Amino acid sequence: MERELVFYTNPWSRGAIVHWMLEELGVPYRMETLEYGTTMKAPEYLAINPMGKVPAIRHGDVVVTEAAAICAYLADAFPAAGLAPELQARGEYYRWLFFGAGPLEAALSLKPCGFTPTPEQQMQLGYGSYEAVVNTLAQAVKGRRYIAGDKFTAADVYLGSHIGWGMQFDSLEKRPEFEAYWAGLKDRPAHKRVAELSEQAAAQQTATQE
Amino acid sequence: MERELVFYTNPWSRGAIVHWMLEELGVPYRMETLEYGTTMKAPEYLAINPMGKVPAIRHGDVVVTEAAAICAYLADAFPAAGLAPELQARGEYYRWLFFGAGPLEAALSLKPCGFTPTPEQQMQLGYGSYEAVVNTLAQAVKGRRYIAGDKFTAADVYLGSHIGWGMQFDSLEKRPEFEAYWAGLKDRPAHKRVAELSEQAAAQQTATQE
Ligand SMILES: N[C@@H](CCC(=O)N[C@@H](CS)C(=O)NCC(=O)O)C(=O)O
Ligand SMILES: N[C@@H](CCC(=O)N[C@@H](CS)C(=O)NCC(=O)O)C(=O)O
Repeated sequence: MERELVFYTNPWSRGAIVHWMLEELGVPYRMETLEYGTTMKAPEYLAINPMGKVPAIRHGDVVVTEAAAICAYLADAFPAAGLAPELQARGEYYRWLFFGAGPLEAALSLKPCGFTPTPEQQMQLGYGSYEAVVNTLAQAVKGRRYIAGDKFTAADVYLGSHIGWGMQFDSLEKRPEFEAYWAGLKDRPAHKRVAELSEQAAAQQTATQE
Repeated sequence: MERELVFYTNPWSRGAIVHWMLEELGVPYRMETLEYGTTMKAPEYLAINPMGKVPAIRHGDVVVTEAAAICAYLADAFPAAGLAPELQARGEYYRWLFFGAGPLEAALSLKPCGFTPTPEQQMQLGYGSYEAVVNTLAQAVKGRRYIAGDKFTAADVYLGSHIGWGMQFDSLEKRPEFEAYWAGLKDRPAHKRVAELSEQAAAQQTATQE
């Protein structure tokens, strides 16, 4: 029997990363939209993710939270889509997935909070500083179509999302390296489909709220 | 030909996580010790990790940075050690590896910096708040010997390290759930070996500096 795949999200959230991943896979899934502050913090959903945050997925009886973890899980669970390198060749794949989920995520989200670490704190904090992270990222994507090997993978979905939205929402400065890398990803049919589906979902949400 | 495995670290650093992982694998590796502020920021090492941080590894011509990424990479590169679940069963494995590298790492390292997010910022920040992270973590390890399935994996090395040292250095409060989980990990022979090797390395470092 097929295991049911449920996707918990909100159209305006990091859930869009997972949405893109799901559309790349081309497998059937059911989307459950949650609202900030209400259904996201209700007991039913806290049983799925005690953080009360989206995204999350449930695949049969396996729950996965954390956008990057969900991308990595789905790539392995649906190998036919070819979105993860083979087991022996996952160095860059994991390096940049974890760099994205750790240092990059911290740098981009703490900057708008007005937090700037002192030099002493930079040695302790895993992300060091916004500048170190952005320079490292620029060097990583420079001249590359894909971040891990020569094929599109789940690491591009995750890292690309941070780069694309970072530039769109001004949490990441626009550099030629980022623009070039993002240009090679953003027109993928699965990514464009998500943009359309999200707008529809958001429109429905607005309609319901009125 | 065997690919050379080089481990870049400092005995007092997150390198100890990778050190533990390497000792669990039982494969040969060469350890290169770097000093804070000097060799860690020298061009030779910045070519390995532009962040100028440890740990990193080089396996043949593959470089991997980020402690969690290195654990995941090594588990897959040396499958004989059995430190990663099979591909179809990696939900919890990735969930807690990424939770550790993202929210947990952020929560434990930002707290000593005196940064406390406002309720508004908690919605945007991937880790939400220290309290949310610690409660989620306690719930995750409660009553479990291992975090992903019923076997010891790289996710226990990574998450266990955060929990063990978090409690030791007071960045993580001591809760019965954490004590019980850590008690099931800390006496593994590989972990005890690392403690001894690190003390030796540190002693040598001190001797050299005198
Ligand atoms: N570390 C999580 C972060 C998830 C997250 O912070 N999601 C936000 C939306 S983008 C959220 O659900 N916020 C609602 C809240 O905290 O109440 C991940 O990468 O998936
Ligand atoms: N995100 C990195 C963090 C690495 C890190 O911050 N390492 C510290 C030591 S624990 C470091 O090398 N600090 C030296 C510096 O920033 O100059 C990881 O998880 O590996």
